[in-house]
Amino acid sequence: MHPIGVIHSPFTEKDKTPIQASRSQAIGLVEIYAEFAGGLKDIEALSHIYLLYAFHDSDGYTLQVRPFLDDKEHGIFATRYPYRPNPLGMSVVKLLFRKENYLTVEGIDTLDGTPLLDIKPYVPDFDLHTEVRVGWYETRSKK
Amino acid sequence: MHPIGVIHSPFTEKDKTPIQASRSQAIGLVEIYAEFAGGLKDIEALSHIYLLYAFHDSDGYTLQVRPFLDDKEHGIFATRYPYRPNPLGMSVVKLLFRKENYLTVEGIDTLDGTPLLDIKPYVPDFDLHTEVRVGWYETRSKK
Repeated sequence: MHPIGVIHSPFTEKDKTPIQASRSQAIGLVEIYAEFAGGLKDIEALSHIYLLYAFHDSDGYTLQVRPFLDDKEHGIFATRYPYRPNPLGMSVVKLLFRKENYLTVEGIDTLDGTPLLDIKPYVPDFDLHTEVRVGWYETRSKK
Repeated sequence: MHPIGVIHSPFTEKDKTPIQASRSQAIGLVEIYAEFAGGLKDIEALSHIYLLYAFHDSDGYTLQVRPFLDDKEHGIFATRYPYRPNPLGMSVVKLLFRKENYLTVEGIDTLDGTPLLDIKPYVPDFDLHTEVRVGWYETRSKK
């Protein structure tokens, strides 16, 4: 794994960073390193993209955590908590526009300086599921 | 990065593997290694989960590719093509049931033996977006 770019965001402190992209209207700038810019062809036709990134500021993990949205412990894999066995983060953001190897996005929820590992198109035909049970998030995710 | 488990699937050949999880009704068995099993607490209350995994059988990449669903070249980051700068794969699958450290899932689209890196809950409040433009997928993704 090696970064393909870096996410610039207004969030420089962990405890002031939004819990999830959907809760954020913050604007971020996704910089793709010049050597990977060719991989962006046609991305401007997409309205939403997944960012996959490293939780670079999260050292170590425990298998059960009390997530930000709850006061009970859950298994790490039933949460989005950033301290994970593999510190991989994922957010869906809205792509506002592209200028060369810079993507301006809305709904950023990552720390400034987060190393970007991959970008994937958000495709409702693949990614949108509506008949969903969300376990402990049921009462928490709208708070 | 180190695998937390392995995905068992009916697909042992790349060219017979479904293009996306949403196109597959195949049943898979996600094995989480015993040392990480504690991280599964409460996962059985979720109906859908993201699997993040390594495209372990994908060596190398080019920045522009002709994806399976199209006959034109697109930037790798505007596609889900498996040969990527960082060979990270992601699928949403339906969690049918859990037996200890084994998750039986529906909609698997990965090769048998795929190394599992992370599991995250699918939470519509975070992950579901409906007003979406999908670029070149527009005419292709339903074929």
